[in-house]
Amino acid sequence: MLGSNGVHGVSHPRVDDHAGVPAGTASFYFRTRKALLHAVAARLAELDVADFSRMAELADDPVAQFTGTAGLARIVMYVNSEPWLTRAKARYELALLAGRDPELATTLDESTERLYTLARDVVTQWHPAESAPDPAVVEDQAIATLAFINGIMMTFVAGQPAVDSAEHLDRLIQGIIAGVATVRGD
Amino acid sequence: MLGSNGVHGVSHPRVDDHAGVPAGTASFYFRTRKALLHAVAARLAELDVADFSRMAELADDPVAQFTGTAGLARIVMYVNSEPWLTRAKARYELALLAGRDPELATTLDESTERLYTLARDVVTQWHPAESAPDPAVVEDQAIATLAFINGIMMTFVAGQPAVDSAEHLDRLIQGIIAGVATVRGD
Repeated sequence: MLGSNGVHGVSHPRVDDHAGVPAGTASFYFRTRKALLHAVAARLAELDVADFSRMAELADDPVAQFTGTAGLARIVMYVNSEPWLTRAKARYELALLAGRDPELATTLDESTERLYTLARDVVTQWHPAESAPDPAVVEDQAIATLAFINGIMMTFVAGQPAVDSAEHLDRLIQGIIAGVATVRGD
Repeated sequence: MLGSNGVHGVSHPRVDDHAGVPAGTASFYFRTRKALLHAVAARLAELDVADFSRMAELADDPVAQFTGTAGLARIVMYVNSEPWLTRAKARYELALLAGRDPELATTLDESTERLYTLARDVVTQWHPAESAPDPAVVEDQAIATLAFINGIMMTFVAGQPAVDSAEHLDRLIQGIIAGVATVRGD
């Protein structure tokens, strides 16, 4: 409801109605509007954890191709399809509220942190195994990759996808990681 | 008010109050809540035009260094300071509403288009003047640059800036443009 209709679309009576539970149920469990929205954030985090565990399993399956930049590109492309698209919209609604709600910000930070860790892993895999990469380079690559994929996901949420295939996105991610490595060190 | 307090923070009486005008003034000019929010979008577009004109002037001033990737980096860093930060927050609020309001989406598209044009210009300047760049490469570079700077601006809005100086951001933008050029053509 938050993703589809925005903050205005969420109220205790509408949640009861949508869930098909007796009137007053939502407000019994989540007294305030704030508590209701925090519960949405917690539920999104829970779904994220489930998605990430599933991806970790797939990463061990060579046929699934869920590793490296190609794996990251596939994960990002999922956000352009349901149910991930509506979840992403809900996450942006909450992100804007989080600017005025530190507790909500903390819950959302966990999701950001998870995505950042994934970006770092992908970047680290990209470096040849025999040499330890410069940590400053890895951090720049992770920052650039994460900002880029967040920007791409925003185009999905806005209904104007900037890329239309995982292959295209993978090529751009590879270019960003490789390019950021070369400009560092001046 | 929209940027600071979110959609919930904007109402006709509060606008009257904030502007110090007689009660009923806002609703006289903007009958509905929707009309009020459209007016905010139009005003943001107007401020963008003013900013972009000012930048175009500065681009002709070699001392101001408002050209190329360094100029783009400086422009993006402004968004981490007021009044641009609150404006950016207001823009994200409107962007989420735009998913359910095609007319609002059209107004916001103009701002996106302006930023995309700027990214394309920066990318085109980056190519050596003597050779006509491959349009597919330029488009990929512009897509990557725009998604990246949007992702960076989101970190400002979220209060967790991913970069802290125009120099750092410039280096990342240069890396992205250079890197995306090399992976194209497979």
